[in-house]
Amino acid sequence: MSEEQYRHEIAHLARIELHTPDPDGTLWFFKDLLGMYETQREGQSVYLRGYEDPYQWSLKITEGPVARMDHAALRTTSPEALERRVRSLQDGNYEGTWHEDEFGYGKTYEFITPDGHQMNLLWEAEKYRAPEELRSKILSRPSKKPLQGLPIKRIDHLNLLASDVTPVKDSFERHLRLRTNERVVDGEVEAGVWMSSSQLSHDVAVMRDARGAQGRLHHVAFYYGVQQHTVDAAEMFRDYDITIEAGPDRHGITQSSFLYVFEPGGNRIELFGDPGMLILEPDFETRTWTMDQIDTGTAIGGTNLPQETYFTYGTPPVDPDPDEDAQ
Amino acid sequence: MSEEQYRHEIAHLARIELHTPDPDGTLWFFKDLLGMYETQREGQSVYLRGYEDPYQWSLKITEGPVARMDHAALRTTSPEALERRVRSLQDGNYEGTWHEDEFGYGKTYEFITPDGHQMNLLWEAEKYRAPEELRSKILSRPSKKPLQGLPIKRIDHLNLLASDVTPVKDSFERHLRLRTNERVVDGEVEAGVWMSSSQLSHDVAVMRDARGAQGRLHHVAFYYGVQQHTVDAAEMFRDYDITIEAGPDRHGITQSSFLYVFEPGGNRIELFGDPGMLILEPDFETRTWTMDQIDTGTAIGGTNLPQETYFTYGTPPVDPDPDEDAQ
Amino acid sequence: MSEEQYRHEIAHLARIELHTPDPDGTLWFFKDLLGMYETQREGQSVYLRGYEDPYQWSLKITEGPVARMDHAALRTTSPEALERRVRSLQDGNYEGTWHEDEFGYGKTYEFITPDGHQMNLLWEAEKYRAPEELRSKILSRPSKKPLQGLPIKRIDHLNLLASDVTPVKDSFERHLRLRTNERVVDGEVEAGVWMSSSQLSHDVAVMRDARGAQGRLHHVAFYYGVQQHTVDAAEMFRDYDITIEAGPDRHGITQSSFLYVFEPGGNRIELFGDPGMLILEPDFETRTWTMDQIDTGTAIGGTNLPQETYFTYGTPPVDPDPDEDAQ
Amino acid sequence: MSEEQYRHEIAHLARIELHTPDPDGTLWFFKDLLGMYETQREGQSVYLRGYEDPYQWSLKITEGPVARMDHAALRTTSPEALERRVRSLQDGNYEGTWHEDEFGYGKTYEFITPDGHQMNLLWEAEKYRAPEELRSKILSRPSKKPLQGLPIKRIDHLNLLASDVTPVKDSFERHLRLRTNERVVDGEVEAGVWMSSSQLSHDVAVMRDARGAQGRLHHVAFYYGVQQHTVDAAEMFRDYDITIEAGPDRHGITQSSFLYVFEPGGNRIELFGDPGMLILEPDFETRTWTMDQIDTGTAIGGTNLPQETYFTYGTPPVDPDPDEDAQ
Repeated sequence: MSEEQYRHEIAHLARIELHTPDPDGTLWFFKDLLGMYETQREGQSVYLRGYEDPYQWSLKITEGPVARMDHAALRTTSPEALERRVRSLQDGNYEGTWHEDEFGYGKTYEFITPDGHQMNLLWEAEKYRAPEELRSKILSRPSKKPLQGLPIKRIDHLNLLASDVTPVKDSFERHLRLRTNERVVDGEVEAGVWMSSSQLSHDVAVMRDARGAQGRLHHVAFYYGVQQHTVDAAEMFRDYDITIEAGPDRHGITQSSFLYVFEPGGNRIELFGDPGMLILEPDFETRTWTMDQIDTGTAIGGTNLPQETYFTYGTPPVDPDPDEDAQ
Repeated sequence: MSEEQYRHEIAHLARIELHTPDPDGTLWFFKDLLGMYETQREGQSVYLRGYEDPYQWSLKITEGPVARMDHAALRTTSPEALERRVRSLQDGNYEGTWHEDEFGYGKTYEFITPDGHQMNLLWEAEKYRAPEELRSKILSRPSKKPLQGLPIKRIDHLNLLASDVTPVKDSFERHLRLRTNERVVDGEVEAGVWMSSSQLSHDVAVMRDARGAQGRLHHVAFYYGVQQHTVDAAEMFRDYDITIEAGPDRHGITQSSFLYVFEPGGNRIELFGDPGMLILEPDFETRTWTMDQIDTGTAIGGTNLPQETYFTYGTPPVDPDPDEDAQ
Repeated sequence: MSEEQYRHEIAHLARIELHTPDPDGTLWFFKDLLGMYETQREGQSVYLRGYEDPYQWSLKITEGPVARMDHAALRTTSPEALERRVRSLQDGNYEGTWHEDEFGYGKTYEFITPDGHQMNLLWEAEKYRAPEELRSKILSRPSKKPLQGLPIKRIDHLNLLASDVTPVKDSFERHLRLRTNERVVDGEVEAGVWMSSSQLSHDVAVMRDARGAQGRLHHVAFYYGVQQHTVDAAEMFRDYDITIEAGPDRHGITQSSFLYVFEPGGNRIELFGDPGMLILEPDFETRTWTMDQIDTGTAIGGTNLPQETYFTYGTPPVDPDPDEDAQ
Repeated sequence: MSEEQYRHEIAHLARIELHTPDPDGTLWFFKDLLGMYETQREGQSVYLRGYEDPYQWSLKITEGPVARMDHAALRTTSPEALERRVRSLQDGNYEGTWHEDEFGYGKTYEFITPDGHQMNLLWEAEKYRAPEELRSKILSRPSKKPLQGLPIKRIDHLNLLASDVTPVKDSFERHLRLRTNERVVDGEVEAGVWMSSSQLSHDVAVMRDARGAQGRLHHVAFYYGVQQHTVDAAEMFRDYDITIEAGPDRHGITQSSFLYVFEPGGNRIELFGDPGMLILEPDFETRTWTMDQIDTGTAIGGTNLPQETYFTYGTPPVDPDPDEDAQ
């Protein structure tokens, strides 16, 4: 069977590890404000999950000198899909490595994107089983919605900055079999791509790094499922001194509702309301936005994404640019 | 490659044909209240699409002596998937037929479920291309949201009544490779199943027909994407004399928001707010609800689904039962 | 100046005292689930306020042998209005008494309605001043929205059961100068009235007690301000074992969004989403609903208010009726 | 009785007359997009009402050379209140005039604010009576919600620009007995005031005109009652080429949800979601925002009100400023 046949190899974003120079602040943000459950502590790391995350954790917070993404992991749709994707990467001369040392997950293949992001692929993931007191009457829900803060349901998607978008996109298309649902072109240059192999508008996005840096994180998104909750969250963030960068509003690209904030460690976090467009057509055609259409693309409402941060700030921050003053 | 490998063969519900004894009323319901666009008229039939339906039509209304579903069609994820599914059906002694006579769609395989419902499988579907004045600035949207009524986005899912749920479920699992996400059991008997091969909580559901009839339609659902719109719709239906059966509320099963009404011809229609649970895990385990859990299963809020209609009324209606007085 | 001139004498419902046989359960309900702040404890009583209640407390929970309302207090629009209302009551031979013994409130006039409910009128109310850490950046907000449960903003309105609605209504119209915004008539009998002198659809409602008892409480309502929060609350109540009686849905009468539950002590509590109709016309004409219109009156959506509880259960419960099985 | 006693003399904003150089565009905006009913045409004017406006009209559109407010009218709480307010204005040397020439309204007193806005006071207003086919089952609703566009319920409030805010505020406090609920001060200067005598956060606001012009309109607001509808409206405006200035978001001042657009004639229109804060306390204390708090004051979410238009553009536009490029 040819690679063409493999249209649904990546199931979803399973987890991310973030580094933070302010672990107390970062944990307060995710636990007290966003209602994530702590499932494990080991060394300098704390493992968290939202009440609908299916596995032991979706977010690992590790103390470190600088805010950044350590790695993100995609789960494949089957063990065979994992083998196929690794073989494809190896055929493409990606020098990845296998390891199996993370709490709650099994054998994992780690590789580096053409722009320097550490990505993981895995199949083996331990399902979270709630103790009696956290069990929900809603059987599809792995645990009760907590009474703390404005709880997010689960991790949603990843948005990477890249010095050059196209090679990252090409590698994701070729080796992970992700589909490019939407893209922004600035003349001949790809300025952003939104990719999935599922019905989500995107599991991974890649946007051009206006600072030209390599391998940075733009944001990771957590899912509410209800747009009103992004409005509620904005009010909470405002009163609890979390900097709101933009939103709540709705992107034209992906049609999803967004709210961007900076967690106390400095990583940009998106709160994701309803999922926006679900892609039911199996042969969805890539939509290409040009710069004259970008206003609708960035926001359907009145939001102007702030130039001074949105397109330049990522983690790890890069220094000596006098123009940058994120947060 | 074994059948085990084919986990994502059915993309989504593409279209349904409903018969109605009151075509004027039915068209007023779908066009004036639900804002569907008319794309074609032929003989006794009118073809309609929601503003985000990707193809020429998702709903065909045909004048007929009695309210019922004529057929529903699922689109496969590839042309090869269509061939595989047809082969499987044929191997299973389903005597289906190929035809190619519907506006906007190509070669279609028609077969009958073990309970008598006419189902179609197809790959070839003509994408809808909006004329200039209906083109949306939101590039992933096939046409502008109209200014008429409370427009639904698109068709969502199908719910069939069956005299015996299990054989229908078995055939959908085996031949269509649908996954049973949730089921209700009443002792040893399967009372309902919710199936998909995608991230939707269900593309097709099958529920036990309390009247024991065969091959009936429980409802077809149309998608708003926003729960508030089911609240708005309830108000519209109330004031425009459309009978509301139940909702707006949220099912525990599927976690989706619902509103059930009867269109003037007599078919039950669901208005579907947000999608509820999206199933990202590729190895999602079937949840089984028992009758002592059914309260949460049927509604998270205070709704009691009306016994006298919800579990007994379907189309075509079956007559001489003094207990039944739907609408 | 004649009484006719005094159209706006009652400002709003300021507070209520509820008795509960299960003080721990009741406090868990109001503090952990509904996010109310505790501001005082004295003897068998705990004083609570929502984050937008302007005074020291809006809800006093007192341990007692049976669930019931001890009293409710309306604040007048001025000190002079209080004097006028008391004079009118006294002229009407209501034998009230002045007292001044409640935490956070001053001189209060207590009287008994024709059906036996204890009502209070007052002007003097101490404004709540938040300590630094609870101060909100939103200056009109007396305190930060807490991170606990699904916090209600404030108390909203009171709904009384009466063996005979009309004398209570008459006394409220005559002596409190409340306006009857809407009423339900069952033949010649008034079955319910919704009254305010403000722009709210009602500060006080009175409904016929189907059990014929006197002086009971139907419910007290707390305000969210956003309909989605009643949906969120229903999910919370479902998973945390609070019995939902009806809703979320919207009444035709008052156009307000409702959710009815029983707190663990047994009192019925309404969670009130958006306020529904605001009455801006100063000469709003009373709307009278007849029994053939009552379906829309009770709910715009599909809710059927449960006959076995909604029209018969109140607190204190009345016993030996075999038909009653509330909760 | 002293003036101090008259705390509730103005009931609400009843109507506004706007001039437009593009009457076809303006009528398309209010009728096709915002679902207002036309109730009358006379000469160059068309009279419109939202489906919950209680009178014959709330908006009169008149063709004219330049976009501007012709006048706005407040309804008093009683005929006596009208007499008192007129007497107070006359005592304050306002040279107003009585007239009685508007469709659907009676005797009206017209006066000019210290900054030059034409304001009307009136009591006599003819209630709208819907013909049978427009009658709603919801008895408090004067007419059915139409099936056209995203229908607003009714007019809500008025926001005036003034070269000097304080004299206008003083006159409204003294002569109309409006209460200043919130204000913004820039050093010693009042930059904005939000006033009502009701439970609404404001019936009238006055903001400093950064262009120093006199007697201009900032915006008139129409009410949805549901925040989601401002999100829906933003999407409609985006796709139907109406310029969105800012929002949807929520102001800290008034806590209300906003969306600002320019109707085709050039007047700024606000779509108002839920009412935000309702002021139940009769002795609500004026909140004063200083410039260091203004971020939260202008928006709780991430909106930055656009400096180049929001604080400078009003109607009628004032010309020769090269910086101004509204729309």
